[in-house]
Amino acid sequence: MSAPFRHVAFIGLGLIAGSMALAIRRAGLAQKISGTARTLETRQTALELGLVDTVHETAAQAVQGADLVVLCVPVGAMSAVAHEIAPHLAQGAVVTDVGSVKQAVIDAVAPHLPGHVHFIPGHPLAGTEHSGPRAGFAELFENRWCILTPIEGTDPDALDRLSRLWQGVGASIDVMDAPHHDLVLAVTSHTPHLIAYTMVGVADDLRRVTDSEVIKYSAAGFRDFTRIAASDPVMWRDVFLTNKDATLEILGRFTEELFALQRAIRQGDGALLQDYFERTRAIRRGIIEAGQDTAAPDFGRAQKK
Amino acid sequence: MSAPFRHVAFIGLGLIAGSMALAIRRAGLAQKISGTARTLETRQTALELGLVDTVHETAAQAVQGADLVVLCVPVGAMSAVAHEIAPHLAQGAVVTDVGSVKQAVIDAVAPHLPGHVHFIPGHPLAGTEHSGPRAGFAELFENRWCILTPIEGTDPDALDRLSRLWQGVGASIDVMDAPHHDLVLAVTSHTPHLIAYTMVGVADDLRRVTDSEVIKYSAAGFRDFTRIAASDPVMWRDVFLTNKDATLEILGRFTEELFALQRAIRQGDGALLQDYFERTRAIRRGIIEAGQDTAAPDFGRAQKK
Repeated sequence: MSAPFRHVAFIGLGLIAGSMALAIRRAGLAQKISGTARTLETRQTALELGLVDTVHETAAQAVQGADLVVLCVPVGAMSAVAHEIAPHLAQGAVVTDVGSVKQAVIDAVAPHLPGHVHFIPGHPLAGTEHSGPRAGFAELFENRWCILTPIEGTDPDALDRLSRLWQGVGASIDVMDAPHHDLVLAVTSHTPHLIAYTMVGVADDLRRVTDSEVIKYSAAGFRDFTRIAASDPVMWRDVFLTNKDATLEILGRFTEELFALQRAIRQGDGALLQDYFERTRAIRRGIIEAGQDTAAPDFGRAQKK
Repeated sequence: MSAPFRHVAFIGLGLIAGSMALAIRRAGLAQKISGTARTLETRQTALELGLVDTVHETAAQAVQGADLVVLCVPVGAMSAVAHEIAPHLAQGAVVTDVGSVKQAVIDAVAPHLPGHVHFIPGHPLAGTEHSGPRAGFAELFENRWCILTPIEGTDPDALDRLSRLWQGVGASIDVMDAPHHDLVLAVTSHTPHLIAYTMVGVADDLRRVTDSEVIKYSAAGFRDFTRIAASDPVMWRDVFLTNKDATLEILGRFTEELFALQRAIRQGDGALLQDYFERTRAIRRGIIEAGQDTAAPDFGRAQKK
């Protein structure tokens, strides 16, 4: 099977672009990779690490001749980037993105693009709490899902080539419409992140428990929240601003539920608490069976020795 | 240095007791280990796995001749166990526990114990989402803290021997009073667990997002919550019932803070969100510097290949 693309251009060179570039090279999915980033430092780092063959000061330059353009900037920056690259896109080029919100990206990008390119919004469900080009690694997408949310009239051949690229870097493809994506992600990602940020903020703010105590004793549960709450601040700011309705809806449900459990604690209703906790255990089993985590009893510990 | 104890008795043979038993054997910290558990199945499993030299149907039998008794039952069961073993404890025996709440354990256990034993409450900050004797592993306490909350007039020699046992299985010791322990743990463990349980419950309950979608797309943040929310339901029920005041206080602070962020989302206040998210990142750095987690970019991924 031939490589799906000849020349891939990355706009933004952070964790996701860096990981994609490494995985694309490893699998031989393109002959050339170009890129641009806002800061000189990131551009130089990407070149040093061999993520890209060429770096460019502007997005307009980076997309010249590319048959795949991947927008890897925060959702709030998508509109300006689309506006900038539009006149420079090659005939028949595929334009995609990796943003965590899809309807807002469609609204921001689609109006700018010329008719002779194929815009297919995408979202790889993979990441770590680290940012920047040095955070990338080629295995990031292995065994992970990439959701594509094609708009009406999408060219099947373009969709097929983009799907082959994602499969080539290890991901499985799902296709759904943008509003459903945004709701599903509000549940599985956006609201959990907001809650983790909140809990870490509360801990930082308490006067009677020192920061050093919070840090020392974090292994008891808090640590997993801090990992989530260390994700890129600008990216997450934009996620909440652009997936506002779905996030607020799920937050409302969360608060309702939290108040019910809080009331059970206050009233000493042990049966309600136990029932609730038994129910949530089943979801965990499902995740392990679906291969999205490991059940190893010493998960994550072996590396520390 | 001689072994701190001769004969250790475990009341309850789950994850913590199983891990302690394996670690005690590995380090040669006692000559004999006895134990009891509520169900025949657990008792047989513990014997099969070599966690204990002898198993007994009752706690009263298990503690015969032991110079260290470790109560590894849910906090709500501590009082009955203490009452049962009290007449059978050896002269000068050290009695400790591993409960996640300390003042409630002191209130439940201390009144039952005879004057000729040394009661030193303890809490190893280590665990996984798995339960039962098969979940134990000898490395569980390595690089983790064990908090002891001795009551007034505690024998220094008994405290020293118990500390040596915990250090021998890899833990570091901290000493504080029970109310402060309960507040610190409400922040670093109890409230995060309740929040994780709530979020997983909300996801399970939504009609428009199917369980299979929640499971498939869990890698985007939700997965870390499900790990926490898969912990032992009875143990956690008892934690919330017995550390009620501190948990409700921290929950109150959490809700306040969450409402402030929710309002920022509704009003589109990106600056507030970004500032908040940048602040929480710093705590994460502190945890990694303190050796309580790893900063490896591919954390936890290598094992899945």
